[in-house]
Amino acid sequence: MTNILLTIEYDGTNYCGWQMQNNGISIQQKIEESIFNITGDKTRIYGSGRTDAGVHALAQTATFKTKSTIPPESICKALNSVLPRDISIISSKAVPDDFHARFSAKGKRYEYLILNRECRSPFYENRAYFYRKEIDLDRMQKAAAYFCGTHDFSGFMSTGSSVNDYIRTIYESEVEKHGDLIRVSLYGNGFLYNMVRIMCGTLLYAGTGKIEPESISRIIESRDRNEGGPTLPPSGLYLAAVVYDEY
Amino acid sequence: MTNILLTIEYDGTNYCGWQMQNNGISIQQKIEESIFNITGDKTRIYGSGRTDAGVHALAQTATFKTKSTIPPESICKALNSVLPRDISIISSKAVPDDFHARFSAKGKRYEYLILNRECRSPFYENRAYFYRKEIDLDRMQKAAAYFCGTHDFSGFMSTGSSVNDYIRTIYESEVEKHGDLIRVSLYGNGFLYNMVRIMCGTLLYAGTGKIEPESISRIIESRDRNEGGPTLPPSGLYLAAVVYDEY
Repeated sequence: MTNILLTIEYDGTNYCGWQMQNNGISIQQKIEESIFNITGDKTRIYGSGRTDAGVHALAQTATFKTKSTIPPESICKALNSVLPRDISIISSKAVPDDFHARFSAKGKRYEYLILNRECRSPFYENRAYFYRKEIDLDRMQKAAAYFCGTHDFSGFMSTGSSVNDYIRTIYESEVEKHGDLIRVSLYGNGFLYNMVRIMCGTLLYAGTGKIEPESISRIIESRDRNEGGPTLPPSGLYLAAVVYDEY
Repeated sequence: MTNILLTIEYDGTNYCGWQMQNNGISIQQKIEESIFNITGDKTRIYGSGRTDAGVHALAQTATFKTKSTIPPESICKALNSVLPRDISIISSKAVPDDFHARFSAKGKRYEYLILNRECRSPFYENRAYFYRKEIDLDRMQKAAAYFCGTHDFSGFMSTGSSVNDYIRTIYESEVEKHGDLIRVSLYGNGFLYNMVRIMCGTLLYAGTGKIEPESISRIIESRDRNEGGPTLPPSGLYLAAVVYDEY
């Protein structure tokens, strides 16, 4: 059996999320069906983590074991020939047997896109959060810096998660603007349920004057979900990278 | 009657093109229906020119006359509230009575996107031409420079056009790369039918070694459609700007 690591790009708009569920078609299911299609194996794949309905990925990862004789690097092309057009495998390679997309991960990077202009754009429909009113980029950038470091993020989590360790380390927290598009980039060793979307909602509150950038520390310390900003919609969120040690 | 200039962004994937036709729904038709919806006027709008099925616009322009009392700058927001999500009016304003989106135009800028990587991307599906093999950017850039100036472009035109003046001036012809995305930008006083898509197919021939960059001049002078590269697909093409004198 060969252990294969896939790196996957997807537009999450038409899916119920990464993980199999009863209420719709998942990305995991589409990939498992495609593996069956090209190898004849009924295989379970293990993602680096779930993404919610409507959330996108630039580089989700998943591992699975196969007896297939297709060269590992060619699995990617074979899968793309049968996958729907909103899912693309950008690489496939053999990894050590004990490598696991989720448990071997050291960190993740997420990006969140906000389209900040007068009118919606057909090109960012379902792919960015459209926000019409003025946003002060400088205030968002100042606020973002306060997320860096190791904190108890229990105030930045939606209910529905079963973890009991709320401490996470954020290595990078940056906001930049290109034209009308604001991009929040968050890199950390892990994220709680909806944590990125709540962090971005709180940054937006800082950018629109509803809170002071300096108040981020106090909001984190409060560990109270009611202190931060709203959970921004899934359509602006991208799982941008899953980081591993070299193996 | 007020003469209104609209600037329009659209994803052309689901349309038969800008202009009304019998074989599908056009962007023009959708906008005319929306004007009827908000003003009650059955009005004809005049675009700066046609775009083919599948071609996109970042800033198509169109003019129409209306008796509506909606403030000209607010027409944009009113139209967006009734237009489908793949068409967005990015501005609306009153212009002099003799201003016409097509006849007042001094130039147009088009962009063409080529996604150059191993595997297709869900985010550029129908929005860039996917080309897997290696492209030499430097050769494309060298070739592009030869398009600048005033030339008889009859070799860069598909049949089906009824013009009889084939002389056009290209002011800017540039190729740049961001990540996996190659962007060709062409600014000129006018373009013949399929001219941008043929120019880009010819640039791609230069970038992949099928022709020499220096041969562009000879190909232009030949005025023979068989000398240049293929007509690239519509999905990579964007009408990026229509340029007017100040009025």
